[in-house]
Amino acid sequence: MMKDLRLSKVYQLLEPGPVVLLTTARNGRANVMTMSWHMMVEFEPPLVACVVSSANYSFAALRATRECVIAVPALKLASKVVEVGNCSGRKVEKFERFGLTPVRAERVTPPLVAECFANLECKVANTRLVNQYNLFVLEVLKAWTDPMQNHPKTIHHHGYGKFAVDGEMIKLKSRMR
Amino acid sequence: MMKDLRLSKVYQLLEPGPVVLLTTARNGRANVMTMSWHMMVEFEPPLVACVVSSANYSFAALRATRECVIAVPALKLASKVVEVGNCSGRKVEKFERFGLTPVRAERVTPPLVAECFANLECKVANTRLVNQYNLFVLEVLKAWTDPMQNHPKTIHHHGYGKFAVDGEMIKLKSRMR
Repeated sequence: MMKDLRLSKVYQLLEPGPVVLLTTARNGRANVMTMSWHMMVEFEPPLVACVVSSANYSFAALRATRECVIAVPALKLASKVVEVGNCSGRKVEKFERFGLTPVRAERVTPPLVAECFANLECKVANTRLVNQYNLFVLEVLKAWTDPMQNHPKTIHHHGYGKFAVDGEMIKLKSRMR
Repeated sequence: MMKDLRLSKVYQLLEPGPVVLLTTARNGRANVMTMSWHMMVEFEPPLVACVVSSANYSFAALRATRECVIAVPALKLASKVVEVGNCSGRKVEKFERFGLTPVRAERVTPPLVAECFANLECKVANTRLVNQYNLFVLEVLKAWTDPMQNHPKTIHHHGYGKFAVDGEMIKLKSRMR
């Protein structure tokens, strides 16, 4: 169902700044949160920095297990993405509550999210800024895309539930990768 | 011309993942580069992480002076933003070449970019991941917006000169800031 994505192309998913989901798993229980504070750090192997607040239930799981999946939702999932962000895994079985389908990952224990158009299996690569800033550096081990979701439009958070949806695509003569 | 922006609102500019410009100044000479690898780290005081490749001419200036300005361009500047990214400050006086107007900042030496709708004066707050990842943590000291640019559409890089332009804005019931 999900198709392999070359690791060298991962940056094209995250560099534009979409709202993403982050899954973790601990003691046999999977959880999912909503995240906008992430950026690329290296093309290949793809490194991604992200900030997961220590107030989030996912923080302890990520720090302890050193594994997660970054799942990229398209516009059609926007209301679920917000609902996922409005509650905590402390109290809610989020996959069940919001009708998200966990799919077994290949390299890590946290699940992929079937409804997302891309899924990135990650391990924690560096924790030097975790204590000070809750900033993790992740390495993407394996990437998947859903070939049935063509040209998915992503959403970009502007604060307090306001999101910009991807509009037109433009092409300019760039020498930049 | 530029209007003060409350520091607590800075994240609303960068969290959506726009392509930005980064200005530096060294030995009396200002330079500007194009950057997509950035993320918010803290709301207030606003902290921003960014990756500036050591291959970029701006890297040495940023590391040595510990100051920069992040300027956020709207769609109308897209072709200039790409041209800025296609050349190096080693060889080109970019402000002059591309008709960008440097404006004196209040708290730092690097200039604001008059044509951008927002400008963030920054100092380097943490360099622990610079050697390993070229990752700087910046603190935003002062933020400006241009009140004449209303609802500016930003651009989001998808690789090799492909950009998504902001489309419609949607509002969902989020409890998230």
